[in-house]
Amino acid sequence: MRSELIFYFDFSSAYSYIAQARIDAVFADVDADIRWRPILLGAIFRENGWVPVSPGSPKGDYTFRDVERTARLAGLEFGWPKIFPFNGMLAARLFYALDSVDAVAFARAVFHAAYVSGQDVTNPAVLEGLVGDLGLDCAAVTARSELEEVKARLRDETTAAMKAGVFGAPSFVVNGEVFWGADRMTDARDWAASGGW
Amino acid sequence: MRSELIFYFDFSSAYSYIAQARIDAVFADVDADIRWRPILLGAIFRENGWVPVSPGSPKGDYTFRDVERTARLAGLEFGWPKIFPFNGMLAARLFYALDSVDAVAFARAVFHAAYVSGQDVTNPAVLEGLVGDLGLDCAAVTARSELEEVKARLRDETTAAMKAGVFGAPSFVVNGEVFWGADRMTDARDWAASGGW
Repeated sequence: MRSELIFYFDFSSAYSYIAQARIDAVFADVDADIRWRPILLGAIFRENGWVPVSPGSPKGDYTFRDVERTARLAGLEFGWPKIFPFNGMLAARLFYALDSVDAVAFARAVFHAAYVSGQDVTNPAVLEGLVGDLGLDCAAVTARSELEEVKARLRDETTAAMKAGVFGAPSFVVNGEVFWGADRMTDARDWAASGGW
Repeated sequence: MRSELIFYFDFSSAYSYIAQARIDAVFADVDADIRWRPILLGAIFRENGWVPVSPGSPKGDYTFRDVERTARLAGLEFGWPKIFPFNGMLAARLFYALDSVDAVAFARAVFHAAYVSGQDVTNPAVLEGLVGDLGLDCAAVTARSELEEVKARLRDETTAAMKAGVFGAPSFVVNGEVFWGADRMTDARDWAASGGW
């Protein structure tokens, strides 16, 4: 049976960066339709009354260190963006302004820019440069990203994620079953491959 | 190099139940001195201003479901205690009243009673029964568990865990490096085996 996998992520989630770098390899042998869906984790946190972990708190310090060692173990280049967390809204709107193949390529480019090249992906000029690098029409895509239907799409995808049970990023929803965390991607893969257990 | 591994757990942590069932197998090929250390997660939560996840919240519902499917995947018998979370203080004091070999056997017995047999391990009579089943002198062990030095030991181990950077259970501290979560036990093992990365 072909599985449906929704990959929910936020550009301002370092574990999402790790997940997107590994997702194709992890799911290589699984018959799955992988749908990339950026969401706004900030909206989900507000809904739940949470605040992001911060350096200086035990969980914050752990998380920052764990992201770095997890990236290192996975052989990934990684550097913290100068401002973190950042607002991934503009990047997410551009994602939904693109068709799906270009959108995934754009998402990968945004993650690389933010976590490898040290670029500010909240800056519209940086984002337009990434769109241009894909050989696309920057002006047309940017104009489309500002349409109410595209803004609504991002809100609707975030709401759909919450309705599916998502509360953090990255999350993987496999045929309706939620797995949370880059470290649970292999469980999501096994669930897809086996039909559940 | 022989590694030092501290396994911090709370009896009222279902993921700790999963971890203790798998820890010997996961670390079988690693030269490590595994020290079991029950702590009071409630004290750590109070210190951080947190409340445990509860059913009915998105993260709570996810956690309850994830514990069940994770136990199933690991081939472990598992049932939720009638009252959960519960107070693991008496069990933890009895642990520290025992010498180390008996203490680990007692901890395993407490986890089995709570998550497999459906016994109330906050009940002193149940706990004394578990001590007796190990062929130990219930009255002497119980009396020792009520000594101020044993009560202080439990507080001190909880404080030591926090100083090491622990904020949740189970956690594994390998030569000073913290790994949080039953799903990170293999990372802890690889860290011990490789000396870090």
